Amino acid sequence: MLMKWCLFLVMLSARLMLMAEEVVSPNGQTRVSFYVEDGRMTYEMWYKGRLVVAPSHLGIELINWPSLMEGFEMEGVEYASFDETWQPVWGEETSIRNHYNEMAAHVVQHLQPSIDVSLSAPRHIIIRFRVYDEGVGFRYELPRHANLDNVKIREEHTEFCMTADHTAYWIPGDYDTDEYEYTISPLSAIKDLEEQARTENATQSAIPAPSTQTSLLMKTADGLFINIHEAALVNYSAMHLVAPPTAPEGASLEMSAEAFVAPSGAERGATFLLESHLTPDARGMKGYLRCPATTPWRTIIVADDAREMLASRMILNLNEPCKLSDISWIHPVKYMGVWWEMMTGASTWNYGDYQPVDIYTTDFTAIKKSPRHGANNDNVRRYIDFASKHGFSQLLVEGWNLGWEDNWQKHINYSFTQSYPDFDVPALQQYAREHGMRLMMHHETSSSIQNYERQLHDAYRFARDNGYDVVKSGYVGNIFPAGHHFDQWMNEHYLYCIREAAKYQLMVNGHEAVRPTGLCRTYPNMIGNESARGNEFMATAGCEPKHVCILPFTRLQGGPMDFTPGILEMDVSRVNPNNHAHVKATVCNQLALYVTMYSPLQMAADVPESYERYIDAFQFIKDVPVEWERSVYLEAEPAEYITIARQEKGTERWFVGGVAGRHEHTAVVDCSFLKKGQQYEATIYADAPDAHYLTNSQAYTITKKRVNSRSRLKIRAVEGGGFAISLRPKDGK
Amino acid sequence: MLMKWCLFLVMLSARLMLMAEEVVSPNGQTRVSFYVEDGRMTYEMWYKGRLVVAPSHLGIELINWPSLMEGFEMEGVEYASFDETWQPVWGEETSIRNHYNEMAAHVVQHLQPSIDVSLSAPRHIIIRFRVYDEGVGFRYELPRHANLDNVKIREEHTEFCMTADHTAYWIPGDYDTDEYEYTISPLSAIKDLEEQARTENATQSAIPAPSTQTSLLMKTADGLFINIHEAALVNYSAMHLVAPPTAPEGASLEMSAEAFVAPSGAERGATFLLESHLTPDARGMKGYLRCPATTPWRTIIVADDAREMLASRMILNLNEPCKLSDISWIHPVKYMGVWWEMMTGASTWNYGDYQPVDIYTTDFTAIKKSPRHGANNDNVRRYIDFASKHGFSQLLVEGWNLGWEDNWQKHINYSFTQSYPDFDVPALQQYAREHGMRLMMHHETSSSIQNYERQLHDAYRFARDNGYDVVKSGYVGNIFPAGHHFDQWMNEHYLYCIREAAKYQLMVNGHEAVRPTGLCRTYPNMIGNESARGNEFMATAGCEPKHVCILPFTRLQGGPMDFTPGILEMDVSRVNPNNHAHVKATVCNQLALYVTMYSPLQMAADVPESYERYIDAFQFIKDVPVEWERSVYLEAEPAEYITIARQEKGTERWFVGGVAGRHEHTAVVDCSFLKKGQQYEATIYADAPDAHYLTNSQAYTITKKRVNSRSRLKIRAVEGGGFAISLRPKDGK
Repeated sequence: MLMKWCLFLVMLSARLMLMAEEVVSPNGQTRVSFYVEDGRMTYEMWYKGRLVVAPSHLGIELINWPSLMEGFEMEGVEYASFDETWQPVWGEETSIRNHYNEMAAHVVQHLQPSIDVSLSAPRHIIIRFRVYDEGVGFRYELPRHANLDNVKIREEHTEFCMTADHTAYWIPGDYDTDEYEYTISPLSAIKDLEEQARTENATQSAIPAPSTQTSLLMKTADGLFINIHEAALVNYSAMHLVAPPTAPEGASLEMSAEAFVAPSGAERGATFLLESHLTPDARGMKGYLRCPATTPWRTIIVADDAREMLASRMILNLNEPCKLSDISWIHPVKYMGVWWEMMTGASTWNYGDYQPVDIYTTDFTAIKKSPRHGANNDNVRRYIDFASKHGFSQLLVEGWNLGWEDNWQKHINYSFTQSYPDFDVPALQQYAREHGMRLMMHHETSSSIQNYERQLHDAYRFARDNGYDVVKSGYVGNIFPAGHHFDQWMNEHYLYCIREAAKYQLMVNGHEAVRPTGLCRTYPNMIGNESARGNEFMATAGCEPKHVCILPFTRLQGGPMDFTPGILEMDVSRVNPNNHAHVKATVCNQLALYVTMYSPLQMAADVPESYERYIDAFQFIKDVPVEWERSVYLEAEPAEYITIARQEKGTERWFVGGVAGRHEHTAVVDCSFLKKGQQYEATIYADAPDAHYLTNSQAYTITKKRVNSRSRLKIRAVEGGGFAISLRPKDGK
Repeated sequence: MLMKWCLFLVMLSARLMLMAEEVVSPNGQTRVSFYVEDGRMTYEMWYKGRLVVAPSHLGIELINWPSLMEGFEMEGVEYASFDETWQPVWGEETSIRNHYNEMAAHVVQHLQPSIDVSLSAPRHIIIRFRVYDEGVGFRYELPRHANLDNVKIREEHTEFCMTADHTAYWIPGDYDTDEYEYTISPLSAIKDLEEQARTENATQSAIPAPSTQTSLLMKTADGLFINIHEAALVNYSAMHLVAPPTAPEGASLEMSAEAFVAPSGAERGATFLLESHLTPDARGMKGYLRCPATTPWRTIIVADDAREMLASRMILNLNEPCKLSDISWIHPVKYMGVWWEMMTGASTWNYGDYQPVDIYTTDFTAIKKSPRHGANNDNVRRYIDFASKHGFSQLLVEGWNLGWEDNWQKHINYSFTQSYPDFDVPALQQYAREHGMRLMMHHETSSSIQNYERQLHDAYRFARDNGYDVVKSGYVGNIFPAGHHFDQWMNEHYLYCIREAAKYQLMVNGHEAVRPTGLCRTYPNMIGNESARGNEFMATAGCEPKHVCILPFTRLQGGPMDFTPGILEMDVSRVNPNNHAHVKATVCNQLALYVTMYSPLQMAADVPESYERYIDAFQFIKDVPVEWERSVYLEAEPAEYITIARQEKGTERWFVGGVAGRHEHTAVVDCSFLKKGQQYEATIYADAPDAHYLTNSQAYTITKKRVNSRSRLKIRAVEGGGFAISLRPKDGK
């Protein structure tokens, strides 16, 4: 490396400091260097002296202008440091430190001479690195030039050159869904396993090359954890990671210009190269930027202790501070829903029989009502009675609105302001209010973006005027008129909804939307997202036990997930006799998720009958809060186990959750997080010794125990099992 | 043919009348027959005993279900007759007769047996023919079946089998623009000439096969005129016509099913076969229908006298009656515009220099104002002074709104509610009102449909609240997020705007939108459209002289065109010294267009200085009305000449316009349309003897003459020339 450096430095402009191409994190353990080699922008990254990212190229391939790939020369760098502690509106703790050293590397690109001087003028761009103790975020910053003004992106070629064949925890690349099981394999096996990992889903668009989605977790042979993701995905398409060998893409509509052919990682001896692959729009375009413009941050988080990865707030920190001036109306929510009964098929979203409907002309009162319509007044009141009795603040009701009879996307069939004849919005909200609750709004767009945006303001106004303050939105099916769930246009749509919803003081919980990238810091009314395979799959195909032991390392890095935990009746036929699925989890696994899967929006997803049946276990769901003072990551190993303790905001109560993945795990809960000298009563919900996530999943024990900060609790969780503890100070609040 | 018929009749179901497959027009001159041959739906058409359409197949190729192409059997027919006279809100006359005989042909399709009985159940569909004395309209009607519910169209295969190599007046097929010059050639030459006919335009998408757009005009060797178009294009994509040989299309995203291969016209000995080709969306899909559904009407108008083609109202008649309950606010408009000065480059739409803008954050007051911004208060007042003095009721002002600095489509850059700092909407509307006028609103969407629809209601409300009642909308550039100008989704968008605008009592004049198909009958606030190469091209490349002698036979069949006539200064450098274009028309050609190109919305497109310069010729533009009692088509030959006389609504004044196309033409104006016994003063604006559309285009004479119903006026128009006559009753109103 040193020789290379020497050669390189000769080329540096003298305008700014020489040797200025390196930046280390505040405590020095993370280091990034940047240089130009043979005209190509290149970076490397070290963590505690170990090379994490081998020399990797940067570049963006354009369509309308010469690409930002080659012909670069270093101009110099600028340094900055930043240290600030900020208070999230909600989160895993009440304050977050944002501490980094920054390096803005200025490079200039010399183009081939052209008759038109303005076309061949040098182009100056910036690569900005923010180096944290736990990793780095970097982005491209494109100032405006006469020959770099409105940019069409063919592809971003950001490389992440891994140093060995790490173990990866990955889901297959897809332009439209991330609701996949995780596969655990060496990086080199992704290309062979990707097709079988792509299990069936409602909307899928395979990527032409073997690839994975972010956030991608890896583990090195010597125990280093590496996570690649992105932060602040705004006005850009979502990034995937292509594993070598990179397959050539088919030409698409506007791709007339000659494609740039980057030297492959393999050619450079980089066998374990991951390369960015953006989500195309319907025309095959990967992005449109108006310079000056910046890309999202490309993030690499590193830890030699898996718990530190869970504790990282780097993704949030790389996002801009809150842009909402009034946040008084934003608050966490614990809710129930008229939902699991539809998911399991016990009741229906649709009011009447399947038929073509036009929300503007169809006479819904004339439609023969299905006896199984879930969102009917009586049923909703029954849920309100139960949920209010047990302290929930909201009730989601799906299938309340006209249009479910003809759930064929690509048409305008859903109304977001007209309820079915058997669902009386004002009366039910009044009933809820009398019980100290609200209804939660549901907007299934069926990805008919045109239909949804046309109704958006009326829909939000309707929601606000009727006392709703949370909207769960859904994007099932192919995007209409055209595009992909994760393309630039759709990402803009999701954010548009968030911004507009804020004007109506509405929080939004988007399902099937793009994976979060920390934007909830900037828009804290983005109260939740799905964007991964959720508990709903338990109603049919199921999630494997390891799933919830991976999500906190991957999907949750970008923001909270509305995973909808709390299924206590694992025999689905007890909800719907015709559904013989079995939830792949124990009761205590489901309880633990309220702690291990952080979200300000937590659902108790099961039906009231199930909770009545397991009322003692249900107590934990009732007790566990959704606002936290502090979080302590006690144990963590991806796919195997996660144990987290969290202190309730404003109290001395603590809650501990532990989940076990593909093997049983005996947790050792070190209670040193507790207040010294204080005695606590612990209520411990644990798997019974003979519990099994498939054959004996409702076997649990509940014990009470007195503990203090010196206690160490040994608790065994079976495969797919878990435990939950609530800790209440004796004589305390 | 007879033998074929006999064979065929054996197959008929006995449930309804035999021999029921033929229908003739009210006066018997047009005849259509329908039958099933070898399982394929087939029709023929005769006009005055001459075969116009030889046996031609019908069918729709589907993606999700078995196609509607083969395996049909006749079930029977139903007949009906209709005769009604209706009053258009505006039009070429005050009442229109809708008189036809109808035949609904019921056919049943037998599918291959399948394990799932519902999939192989017979499918019953209807082909409905409406036969007028001047032609036929027919459409597909698809009732709902278990195996025909939600339909994805791969292609419609409607054939129009011509009997010989007719002369065609055509523009090349294109999914995004119809702003082309016409080519006149035999049908068989289209395939060779199509590429050169596809001259450059802002947004273009060639069709994979040699093709033309509708409405297509043809002339047979023995003098029959044939027009193929469509009526009531609602919830469907626009149709093109492919000339043989049909090239195979490339596979597109969702086209996984095996494509149906229809026997080509050539294989069936049909050399001059035109076949429908629908506009695909961004996914390559050609339509989504929810059955029950109907297609637009496919129309064939026939005449042995070209004047009768101009007089046909068949396209309007095939559309549904007016759906607006209140039409009191709809009225024709004659307007001027701060427009030609931008078109010629004398002034600019943008207020400041080219730069990236964000309408939500850019401080426009800080942008350095261009001295050439056209839509400034002083300039607009100057136009109002002039236009009001000369009796115009509205003034279009383009470039009034924020965002023109960064006219790069695919981004949200136009605001439709915020004006530039130098354009004071309330003050200017007030000034206009004081002068008996209104401003006309302009919405250039730059085809950013998302941006436009998001602002649509605010934009319409802003327009209404500020006293506007006409919106000129524009769709320059590629459709964003994706699609084509003429696909199903965009057609739905245009109609959505029309419907929503009506709620604000706004009339809409859509430029670059899909070609009209008579929908202005149903929505008479659809006051105009461009949808063809308009006079604006005169500012640069120009339109050839024949152009305005073809449009009334083709483009105008579907509805009025905002052609923007009235350019009197042909030397464009007198408007902008840097623009050396020359308008390819004489002054009298431009005057005549106010009569020959019917529109309820007529612009006087030139700048005030030009009108001052030719104030005597301008008098005709001032006098000519936009509301008509009656129209008489005096002379017509496509590409050569058109002479039309129209009576002003509610008066005894008549106006005659005559245009000559690619050759000079001496018109003989037979004044027998005038009231018998009444004397009229005729003011005749005619080309000077030495006029020439390129070299001496401002040479005209104005003479006055006394005429009556027995007069015959001989007036010579040069190539690209014309004449205009206003006739005022002596002693009359």
